[in-house]
Amino acid sequence: MAGAGTIATAAAQPWRTLLVAALESNAHLKHSSYFQLATVAANGKPANRTVVFRGFQEGCDNIHIHTDSRSSKIDEIKHCRYGEVCWYFTESWEQFRINGTLDVIDCSTTDPVKLQQREKSWFSCSLKSRFQYLGPVPRLPVLSAEPSKVDQLDSSSGPVDTFCLLIFDPEQVDYLSLKGNERILFRSRRSSSESRVWFSDKVNP
Amino acid sequence: MAGAGTIATAAAQPWRTLLVAALESNAHLKHSSYFQLATVAANGKPANRTVVFRGFQEGCDNIHIHTDSRSSKIDEIKHCRYGEVCWYFTESWEQFRINGTLDVIDCSTTDPVKLQQREKSWFSCSLKSRFQYLGPVPRLPVLSAEPSKVDQLDSSSGPVDTFCLLIFDPEQVDYLSLKGNERILFRSRRSSSESRVWFSDKVNP
Repeated sequence: MAGAGTIATAAAQPWRTLLVAALESNAHLKHSSYFQLATVAANGKPANRTVVFRGFQEGCDNIHIHTDSRSSKIDEIKHCRYGEVCWYFTESWEQFRINGTLDVIDCSTTDPVKLQQREKSWFSCSLKSRFQYLGPVPRLPVLSAEPSKVDQLDSSSGPVDTFCLLIFDPEQVDYLSLKGNERILFRSRRSSSESRVWFSDKVNP
Repeated sequence: MAGAGTIATAAAQPWRTLLVAALESNAHLKHSSYFQLATVAANGKPANRTVVFRGFQEGCDNIHIHTDSRSSKIDEIKHCRYGEVCWYFTESWEQFRINGTLDVIDCSTTDPVKLQQREKSWFSCSLKSRFQYLGPVPRLPVLSAEPSKVDQLDSSSGPVDTFCLLIFDPEQVDYLSLKGNERILFRSRRSSSESRVWFSDKVNP
């Protein structure tokens, strides 16, 4: 979960303005770029884990997350593409619950634009982070004699097969400020031009 | 989300020993008693929010959570009783993913033992926390002329109808230490005496 994302600006939606302000006011805390992502497994049960915010996609509000293709969240997302982010900022006491859909960009993706995004994400990682994708299969029993594959990677090598970019497309944001005792619900729908139109309501906390 | 839980000890399972140690080493951080609880809504989509750890149940490993009967998680749990807790400790860099089942104890519960647990939970809350359950309906639009009901509550009054105790019964714990680069999977099954028997495996992070 190492390494924070960039928070490049665009024509900012009000919820994004709040989120960027929270990221800035909590930026001195390494964990402020971590959030919890919930998905639904094939057996219908919820799954939940901490992931790292890797920045917004250029020109839109999609959120980037990196993961290993061998982690169970990939199968979960292929079964049910919905996710809910819960992002609690421990310094400013703000919570963002963001629901939306997840798109898996991996080595089997054929769309050249998405493959380019994946490659860009790969090179944005530190070498140490890249090495993690060469490690043994997550959640399998530890084998002490596991050979190291670290020497198979140099800094100019492109993404390894296990490297996945997850693109999270927010549809609704439930913002709660505990300090301000304020809650705002941001809802969206697709416009005719396929961009999102957002509406907001002040609701009871 | 105010007020931390107690961490009363019992014949401790290894995962609980790790969790209690994490709670102790992070105790100076108010947010160390907050975790994210994922559930599944009736539409099959995941939901995720921050809740407060209110302690373990006496004599077992069940985890107590307080909530408002008017919050959407109640309907979600009535539709699907499975939950997954993701609890990340920001100081010690440890994550506990705990999956299990949720039981809603509210004013319609008939089991006298459970009702007693709910009453005990109510009186363990500060008066300020109790007042929250008299507030306007969560997620409904804010009405400026909402009358205050605070004067309807004194310190000896029992639980109000909107006060719910959630009892979370852990079935599996996925422990990850980022500092130690260690991951342990704890699985359980019910023994013939209905208590849980736990097994653990060291797995790849």
